[in-house]
Formats: sequence, C-alpha cells, structure tokens
Amino acid sequence: MERLFSYQHLLTFTREVFLKMGCPAEDALLAATALLSADLRGIDSHGVARLGGYVRLWEAGRANASPAIKIIYETPSTAVVDGDRGLGLVVAPFAMKVAIEKARQAGTGWVSVQNSNHFGIAGYHALQAVREDMIGIAMTNASALVAPTFSVERLLGTNPICVAIPAGDEPPFVADLATTTAANGKLEILQRKNELAPAGWIQDRFGRISHNPHELKEGGALLPLGGDREHGSHKGYALGAVVDIFSAILSGANYGPWVPPFPAYVPMPEDMPGKGIGHFLGAMRIDAFRSAGEFKDNMDKWIRRFRAATPVEGEKKVLIPGDPEREMESDRLDKGIPLFSLVADDLQKTGARFGVRFL
Amino acid sequence: MERLFSYQHLLTFTREVFLKMGCPAEDALLAATALLSADLRGIDSHGVARLGGYVRLWEAGRANASPAIKIIYETPSTAVVDGDRGLGLVVAPFAMKVAIEKARQAGTGWVSVQNSNHFGIAGYHALQAVREDMIGIAMTNASALVAPTFSVERLLGTNPICVAIPAGDEPPFVADLATTTAANGKLEILQRKNELAPAGWIQDRFGRISHNPHELKEGGALLPLGGDREHGSHKGYALGAVVDIFSAILSGANYGPWVPPFPAYVPMPEDMPGKGIGHFLGAMRIDAFRSAGEFKDNMDKWIRRFRAATPVEGEKKVLIPGDPEREMESDRLDKGIPLFSLVADDLQKTGARFGVRFL
Repeated sequence: MERLFSYQHLLTFTREVFLKMGCPAEDALLAATALLSADLRGIDSHGVARLGGYVRLWEAGRANASPAIKIIYETPSTAVVDGDRGLGLVVAPFAMKVAIEKARQAGTGWVSVQNSNHFGIAGYHALQAVREDMIGIAMTNASALVAPTFSVERLLGTNPICVAIPAGDEPPFVADLATTTAANGKLEILQRKNELAPAGWIQDRFGRISHNPHELKEGGALLPLGGDREHGSHKGYALGAVVDIFSAILSGANYGPWVPPFPAYVPMPEDMPGKGIGHFLGAMRIDAFRSAGEFKDNMDKWIRRFRAATPVEGEKKVLIPGDPEREMESDRLDKGIPLFSLVADDLQKTGARFGVRFL
Repeated sequence: MERLFSYQHLLTFTREVFLKMGCPAEDALLAATALLSADLRGIDSHGVARLGGYVRLWEAGRANASPAIKIIYETPSTAVVDGDRGLGLVVAPFAMKVAIEKARQAGTGWVSVQNSNHFGIAGYHALQAVREDMIGIAMTNASALVAPTFSVERLLGTNPICVAIPAGDEPPFVADLATTTAANGKLEILQRKNELAPAGWIQDRFGRISHNPHELKEGGALLPLGGDREHGSHKGYALGAVVDIFSAILSGANYGPWVPPFPAYVPMPEDMPGKGIGHFLGAMRIDAFRSAGEFKDNMDKWIRRFRAATPVEGEKKVLIPGDPEREMESDRLDKGIPLFSLVADDLQKTGARFGVRFL
C-alpha cells in the first residue's frame, strides 16, 4: 500500500505544482521546502499529502498564489503582518524573518499574522530562528475540530505550539505539539488500520466518550490535551485558546468557530470577525539574555542529563523533544518518504491538472 | 476541621511575619499580598499554608529577607534579573515591573530571573500586566517532582505557565496551569480525604501506574500533562521543559534535578549549575499589535461565544480560563478563607516564633 519516493523527487514535483499555480519562483521553492519538511519529520498528515488541498483552496479563490505580504503595524519588538490570502507556507516564513530582524535590533521579535492560510508544521518555522542563535516560537490557529472542556461544540483548532531552542554540541530542542491529546494524523492512522481510538482522544456529537476514529465526520470532536477534566483537559483547552488569541485576536484574523476550513468544499463560516487564519511567530536572541556559549553549554548539560535518565521497564531511553523527528528526517532523507497509494494517486491527479508528471 | 479567616486578618498576620523576618515594609506587604492571592483564588497549596515554609527557608539561610535585586543584563526588550536569594514573592514582581517598562518602550518585555525562591502562584504575577493593558506571562521552575515520559527519575518541577489577557466588558482570560496532569495540591486533597488518585496522575518509584496519593514520599513522581505517552504526556513533558529552560537556562539559575527544594530540611542538590530557582516573566502591550479597543471587543466576542457553547449533559456551562478562580476570589473575600486546623496550628507556631499573634 506504501511506496517510497525520494525527498528530491517530491520537492521538485511540489515546487513545479506551486510554480504552475502561479507562485513566484522563490515562493514555490520555499512553499515546497516548508511542506516537505513535514514528510521528512514524519508528520505525514501535514506534508505533501495536503498538496491537492492547497491547490483546491487556490482554485476556490481562497488562497492567493502571488500575495503582496506586508507589515501593517509595528513597534521595535512587534509587528502585525497581512498575508494577503497567501499560502501560510510562504506567509509564515515572511513573518518569521520579520521576527528575527526585530530580535536582532530589540532582543526579541513577535509577529502576529492575519489573512493567511494553513502554514504546514510549526516546527519548520520555529527552526528558522535556531539557525540565527535564537529561540524560535511558532503557533497557528486552525478550523474548529476541538471541543473545549464540557463543550459539545467544536470551537478550537488543533492549534499547535512549537518552541525550538538551540544547543551546543547536542542537536536543538524542538517541542512541536498540537494542543490536543492526539492530532488528526493519529486518527487517520487508526482509520487505515481499522483500529479503535483510546479514551481521551475524541468525543461523539453528544460529548460522550468515543473510540470511533471516524467520529469527526459524524459531528464528534477532538479533545484538548488531558482528555477529560480529571486528567487536565481544561489545561489543553486553555493552551489552545492562548494560541487562538495570540494568532488571531492580536492580528485581526478569524478565531474560534470562525476560522476558515482547510478543505475547499467546506463552506466558509458566517459572520466572520476577521481575515483568513492567524499565526504567531516569535524569536528571542539568546545573547539578549546571556552569552550564547554559556547558554549552549547549559543546554547540552540539560539534554545529556535528561537523556541519561533511568528509563521505565520496557522503554529504551528518555527522549528529548525533537529526537524522534530528527531521527525520522535522517532516515527518510536516506531511504525515501513512504506515501500511501491513495496519496500518490491524488498527487498524480494534482500534477496532471497542471501538466506536471508525478511518476 | 476547617475554620474561616478573613482575608484582611490573614494579610495583616502574614505581613507582620515578613516584617519580623526582616523584609522592608513595602516588600512585606507585597509578599503577603502575592502569597494570599493564592488563597483567594483557591490554590490553597500555594498560599498562606506555605508561610512556615518560607520562614524555614529564611532560617536555613536559603532565602534573603532584604535582597538587593538587580538587572544584570538587558536589551531594549529583554533583561536578566538577579534576585539575590530573595523571596520569589518579591523578586518576581520586580522582574514583572521591568518587563512592563520594557513593553512600554519596545512593545514587549521579557525577563528571565536567576537566584530566586518560590514565587507563589504564577497568576498573581501575570495579572500585573493586565492592569496596564498588556498580556502578562509568568512561569517558574521548581524542584523536581515530575518524571518525564519514560523516565523513572524525577527531573522537572510542576513548572507552571500563566497567560493573562485583558478583555473589555468581560473579565480577563487567565490560563494558569501546572504542566502536570494534577498539581501537588490535588494530591494533598486526596490524602486528607483518604481517597485514591486516578490513573495518569502519578507513578511509583519504578515508573509503574500508581493510585497512592502518598506515592511522592516513597520515591514516586507526578506525571506530565497527558499522563502517559498514548495520551500525550510527551507534550506535557515538553511544556514543562520549556518552562525550565526559559526560567533557568536563559537566566543562569538551576534547572532540572538541580533546582533547590522548597522544604528547608531537604538537602540541596550536589554540583548545582546555577543560582537559586528561575522565573520567566513577559509583558506584551496590546497596542503594540492593534488598538486596545479593537482587541478587547474581539476578546469579549471570543469569551461570549465560548461561554455560550452547548454544554455536555451533566455540566452547567463551558468555562473561560480564569472563571473558577475569579468566582472563588469573590466568594472568599466575602465569606473568608477556610484553613485546615493543621495549617492554622502551623501559622500559630510561626507567629509565636516572632511574637506575632495569629488568633
């Protein structure tokens, strides 16, 4: 059911599709690189499998292939960026560049973005800052699939947060997490395997515990990190809410149940209070706090101490946030990226639409 | 077993004790106010019940009653503060003032703190920024009681994060959460009631699921938000780690298993890499992004939409982060703060040590 494709092949193909869609050359490469970073890091639900979805958003007139992205407001350490309905894959890197430039001058930079679309994985954007010896932070809101604690209704997206922190000899610390117990991609895996979901992942349309991985199509909802009140779901809900507010209320994007859906066939919400979806990008220069050398020595010490912790029986070792994704990246660069035939077929069709060969 | 005490009585008593300990008058009132804010908001484990603990830290020479708190490094939007071993209840407000002042000038302000002690509840500090039409952020590390995912060892504190956000006609949004499934205070409640803990809260000293609320005294550990890997504990672990790094590695405080313990009778860790415990305070001026009026109108809309969500059967309503604590505050200001006789006895003794009458 799966077949391996080289990273280079998928990157070239994706770039070609974005080019044909009308993206400027530089944007097409950037968008392809950002999108493919999800496949490399093993977050398959956010990678090339979504290419057709981006194309359909563009066809529906909801995404702009050649946006005039601009800063509409700023102070020494902040800015608001209008993405002009561009692909988040291009808008977010623009905003992160602004954040990094602000951090160079003022120590930190914080950019809230309106009028954007889905930006791929948060990790890609946060890691841009790490290359500059900065801590990178990236978050985005998304259309409502998550029910707050005690709510039957879906009011929040999976609203991920990424914090990427440089180390010295050790690789960077990269915490990249949806603020739900399990993200959509995990449900898709269960659907394919025909397996049930554990309690705490989803609820049905009445707000009752469900194990059915197809529940979202039937009006059910993903649950905030924690799962239920007794296990701290009010904390996951609060974190998802913070992401929503930083990304959209600071910027003037849509929030809560008004965030535009990714699938182009889903109608837009009524009475939308803002523009597009919102992101929030941050960069903190390490040496705005202490010397980068000292910081990195201590990060190495932190990482080594945690990695050396005695594991519980049955587990090999304690992982550092970012370890699994980095190992996956190295493995997939080497061996190729596995795609399900359904995904490969969709890419074939997407390419054919533009006269770009996939196979 | 419980008796009610008026807020004013407890505040006056606590201030007197801090004065006798040698705190300057202004610091004594500030520390008492910050400490009591926990009791008002219903976070009893972090309030006046800890007063004896602070006194014992001072007696052991681990806390300095009259610290020379100072900025040791800064840029337009950042600073590092040395707390000079002061009470976190005094050091953190100093740092938050610096963050607010930076935000006035540069749009945002971010302060990492070394050489401090326990700062009470994060919510008190974050809320200082809300009064200035800013978003307030407060976090702190704490001594290691939490086992990272797959770890037998305790390597992180309960490391709370608070984000407080101003609204318009609605009360502020206040997300104040330990990065664990359940904080220590919840275990104390179970201990008093002689009840078992749900799965996902704690593990025993071998890393196995435990329901024993006394497990921490026997080498067990609290679990990160999520509880286990299947329910996203790697996310709670990653968030707790971010708090540790922002609070201590940016500032030069101790981190991970080296954070000094709160109980004065527990020996200090060996080979400590930094100074005291660390905090991280942030302030973002709303109008560094968009007009405060527009922002607040949208916050009101957000809050009202979430509050109006259909609740699941058996629950009255969907809550906004900060609702329960605010209702508790209003109730306790009115009716008094309940203290267990064990806590009241300890306060009596603590007062007697300084010739301050409690009853």
